[in-house]
Amino acid sequence: MTLPTARREITGFSNPTVKFLKSLRDKKHRKREGKFLAEGLRLLTDALESGRVPEMLVMASTRDPHPLLGALVSAVEHAGGEVVETTPDILSKITGKDNPQAVAGVFAEFDTSLAALDRTAAPIWLVAQALRDPGNLGTMLRTGDAIGAGGLILIDDCADPFSVEAVRASMGAVFTQGIARASWDEFLPWLRGGPDEERGQLVAASLREAVPYRGAPYAAPCFVMVGNESRGLPENYEAACDLRVTMPMKGRADSLNAAVAAAVLGYEVLASLDG
Amino acid sequence: MTLPTARREITGFSNPTVKFLKSLRDKKHRKREGKFLAEGLRLLTDALESGRVPEMLVMASTRDPHPLLGALVSAVEHAGGEVVETTPDILSKITGKDNPQAVAGVFAEFDTSLAALDRTAAPIWLVAQALRDPGNLGTMLRTGDAIGAGGLILIDDCADPFSVEAVRASMGAVFTQGIARASWDEFLPWLRGGPDEERGQLVAASLREAVPYRGAPYAAPCFVMVGNESRGLPENYEAACDLRVTMPMKGRADSLNAAVAAAVLGYEVLASLDG
Repeated sequence: MTLPTARREITGFSNPTVKFLKSLRDKKHRKREGKFLAEGLRLLTDALESGRVPEMLVMASTRDPHPLLGALVSAVEHAGGEVVETTPDILSKITGKDNPQAVAGVFAEFDTSLAALDRTAAPIWLVAQALRDPGNLGTMLRTGDAIGAGGLILIDDCADPFSVEAVRASMGAVFTQGIARASWDEFLPWLRGGPDEERGQLVAASLREAVPYRGAPYAAPCFVMVGNESRGLPENYEAACDLRVTMPMKGRADSLNAAVAAAVLGYEVLASLDG
Repeated sequence: MTLPTARREITGFSNPTVKFLKSLRDKKHRKREGKFLAEGLRLLTDALESGRVPEMLVMASTRDPHPLLGALVSAVEHAGGEVVETTPDILSKITGKDNPQAVAGVFAEFDTSLAALDRTAAPIWLVAQALRDPGNLGTMLRTGDAIGAGGLILIDDCADPFSVEAVRASMGAVFTQGIARASWDEFLPWLRGGPDEERGQLVAASLREAVPYRGAPYAAPCFVMVGNESRGLPENYEAACDLRVTMPMKGRADSLNAAVAAAVLGYEVLASLDG
């Protein structure tokens, strides 16, 4: 990258930059490049206000002028990034959306090691185990932002938080929530480590030896864990929890959508700790 | 349809029945045929136990024998429906899923008029206004089942509750929850009509003149309404509510995912009415 930045215009579908951008919809390519894609002026503005500047900004040539877009362009150029103009059709091809947003950005993936999280920074954390749906994962990030969580910890083989679907569903929370990826065997010692007052409380919704979720003895930092969409949490993971809680199930089903369970439980923990 | 039922075997992708089944993934065709598709042994068993027998049952030739599947086949044959065997590849093409369930069923769409709902049958009802995501809609049905809601009322132009995505996300609740479709101008008089003790209380999450959602004066039958994913509820819809409540938003975002908001609010109403 060199300064000053040239504003490139791209009009061909076979342009290498278009191919590169489109490839970021694929997990393998994201991993290799260490980069991901986020769309939309509001989301990119959230990113900017959280200190995340895209390395590349791609704008539709047909966009309406907007002061927030001007601020984005300035920030990217100031940071030595590249600003590219292209057609709505090509933007649509890049993002895989019929009605694409007028702007998209390429970001470097963040550090997702447990060590990068400060568990004393927030009273609530969300934990997902083998969650396969990127929409659920993004929704959990969005909920985490709302309940003042510190972030989302992904245990075992989860969907990619940097996928276009997860970033979209997070509504910008991918930039504000901490994100860590770890195996169960890494997570548990990390959770139990440190001085007593920092020791995390691990809570899961469960049908086994559980107490009602309302009025349960939640304690900060409280880690609210949900499991895989089909299988739920492994039995030994549940057994390792400090607290197993149960939510009313009045109908035929015995479980909630994973992101819904995390939210109902998360809001209960918030009320309990705030009260 | 004639009795006794022949078990047809279909091995060709261009078979008219395959084309018919595949067409049910399309809203236009569902509407014309008045039928929809549901997949999976568990879901079809839920349907059966709720008194919904598929008109046609499609099974993979490679399926494992299962007593629940035997019960399904018997029920369909007894009702004069058709049982079809086909290859996993064709089932995959029909359902649009890479790893299809071993069985799918075709159901007649239900009556979705407001008049078919008995509001005294349950203390809680969910209401969605212009909800566009079929996954959100299915998740609301699933949550409704869990909180003992009577059903889901779809206001204005919502996603189709009989789409494959909504049925899948509902985890069978599409068969157990009441479903009605209405315009706002039909819904409001229906809600306010009838004797005083049956008059519904309309509740929405709102930022305008709202009270905290915890401890708000909920009353049965309580109708919990959420709005469109992007725009939320129209201002005049909010103004017409009996109760506007607000949930804590500790982060940058000012809203939750629609299905998440319905669940957090729905569980709060349940606790309030049960307490």
